Amino acid sequence: MKSALVMNEFSLIDVFFKTPALQRDDVIYGIGDDAACLQVPPGKQLFVSTDTLVADVHFLSSWDPFDIAFRAVMVNVSDIAAMAAIPCWVSLALTIPDADFTWLTRFSEGLHAALSPFGISLIGGDTTRGPLSITLTIHGMAPHGKGVRRKGAMPGDIIWVSGELGAAALAVSFLERPDMAETDRLVLMKKLLHPQARIDLAVMLQRFATAAIDISDGLAADLNHICEASGVGACLSLAAIPVHPLVIKYLGDNATDFSIGGGDDYELCFTTPASLYNDVVETLNEDGLFCYSVGVIEEVPGLRGADSRGDVIVLAPRGFSHF
Amino acid sequence: MKSALVMNEFSLIDVFFKTPALQRDDVIYGIGDDAACLQVPPGKQLFVSTDTLVADVHFLSSWDPFDIAFRAVMVNVSDIAAMAAIPCWVSLALTIPDADFTWLTRFSEGLHAALSPFGISLIGGDTTRGPLSITLTIHGMAPHGKGVRRKGAMPGDIIWVSGELGAAALAVSFLERPDMAETDRLVLMKKLLHPQARIDLAVMLQRFATAAIDISDGLAADLNHICEASGVGACLSLAAIPVHPLVIKYLGDNATDFSIGGGDDYELCFTTPASLYNDVVETLNEDGLFCYSVGVIEEVPGLRGADSRGDVIVLAPRGFSHF
Repeated sequence: MKSALVMNEFSLIDVFFKTPALQRDDVIYGIGDDAACLQVPPGKQLFVSTDTLVADVHFLSSWDPFDIAFRAVMVNVSDIAAMAAIPCWVSLALTIPDADFTWLTRFSEGLHAALSPFGISLIGGDTTRGPLSITLTIHGMAPHGKGVRRKGAMPGDIIWVSGELGAAALAVSFLERPDMAETDRLVLMKKLLHPQARIDLAVMLQRFATAAIDISDGLAADLNHICEASGVGACLSLAAIPVHPLVIKYLGDNATDFSIGGGDDYELCFTTPASLYNDVVETLNEDGLFCYSVGVIEEVPGLRGADSRGDVIVLAPRGFSHF
Repeated sequence: MKSALVMNEFSLIDVFFKTPALQRDDVIYGIGDDAACLQVPPGKQLFVSTDTLVADVHFLSSWDPFDIAFRAVMVNVSDIAAMAAIPCWVSLALTIPDADFTWLTRFSEGLHAALSPFGISLIGGDTTRGPLSITLTIHGMAPHGKGVRRKGAMPGDIIWVSGELGAAALAVSFLERPDMAETDRLVLMKKLLHPQARIDLAVMLQRFATAAIDISDGLAADLNHICEASGVGACLSLAAIPVHPLVIKYLGDNATDFSIGGGDDYELCFTTPASLYNDVVETLNEDGLFCYSVGVIEEVPGLRGADSRGDVIVLAPRGFSHF
């Protein structure tokens, strides 16, 4: 058992992660004690989410450790974005087969590169020896009662998507494909490795959204989560789905279908009351942002898609099971 | 990559973990959204700690899943106890090779059996497929400024230990030993599998302790952490170290030495000002508790031990490296 752990004297957390570039006022103290001590300001609620990424399941162990760390952070931050909260702290549980200095250095660089733009502090963690895997627990805050849940979508609400879909899933499916142009491969891999969690939408969502989720498993699967939690159905305007240009280039007529089923983009899907459509558009404009209205919430359960001729087909809530 | 995950349609978290026996007022909503929403009361600070347990490193995969879960919880709760905080919420990241119903049922039972006595809510989690490992992120609270850190021990302070040491380490070292009486083996395995995190000491520690840590790596190693963080040294009265009777039975003259170096007991080591000795004893008595005063903090760095003749020897900060 534990004696197998003895490998070196130094604490990995101390060496690689202890000196965060960032010091937040709400971190009373972080790494170095048995727990971090934190202060949630009055009027704020706390949001907590945990995600694990396992080598050769959620990422390839051959990837640059910078990218592994970056993606792990974004997957977690995206859960906070989906709640319309602002991320603040993260703890890292890193399991690695051996203490490779170069690997840990790159991993640490990717971690801090992903955390810094959001002002997120690393508040603690645990390094253990074992098969490579990363678990992050991310914390965020939002004003009291302003978090947005999966439940809350109402018949008549407009369904929105925050960006183009399908590129990350295309990258996954084409990882081994030799016939892809190198420039295209680089664009797609960037979408897969460096997704951008949509924290920039938080304040707009707090004002207008009735429900929200991040698109990790695919639009169909994740919108279906909103529908099930809210006790409603949805009809997507298939022609309005924003599909990444490279998905159209490589998949042609199947591009929309693929983009509805493919995950890993970490854009948001959210709903707003139809009566607030103009307010949503105006607020997005003011913030220099754009989202796509892609359908409408309906009373009848289930997912449907309307094609450009107005024909309605039933959509399967595809996407990946987490297990 | 992700397609390898598809195994079944149901969400493990939903089936096994979604219905907590316990509902706390400060959990606004838990499992079922992208993040849990929580409320920290005014005047309280939040404490967060993460620990990973990897199969066949921190536990044997052959153990009853009930025990694996129970121990994983206690290891984490103990970190909150070491801060003199009260645990409140936990999130679970469970990586398992396959979704074995019987295994998950037992694991879930052990999890809830460990959480319930402390009133801890399971607020979320992630189940992934991969080599067996468990990461828990535990949250606790304490009144503003009342958390106890590793730093803070002052020369002259009394060093305390909250219970008998060595039994869990003896269990680890004797796991395969056939010459042990079955009754003894059961007692030791219970100490290893079902340690009791010392949350019962929190209020006393908040009042009197200058520094605290949980004894996960062994008294010498963990007291050394206090000394290094506090910029002091320590001298232990070797005869005063509370050694578990079975350690004496099996190790004789080496019992104290073994108990100082052995980890996994999850008792607490803490320091209090000498002037408050009587107050500490009285408060412990009132709560029906007992702790052992085992030494004194000194100005000179390093760990020392005084034997019954008063001879002082240098102690190595042994114990296990976490990696």
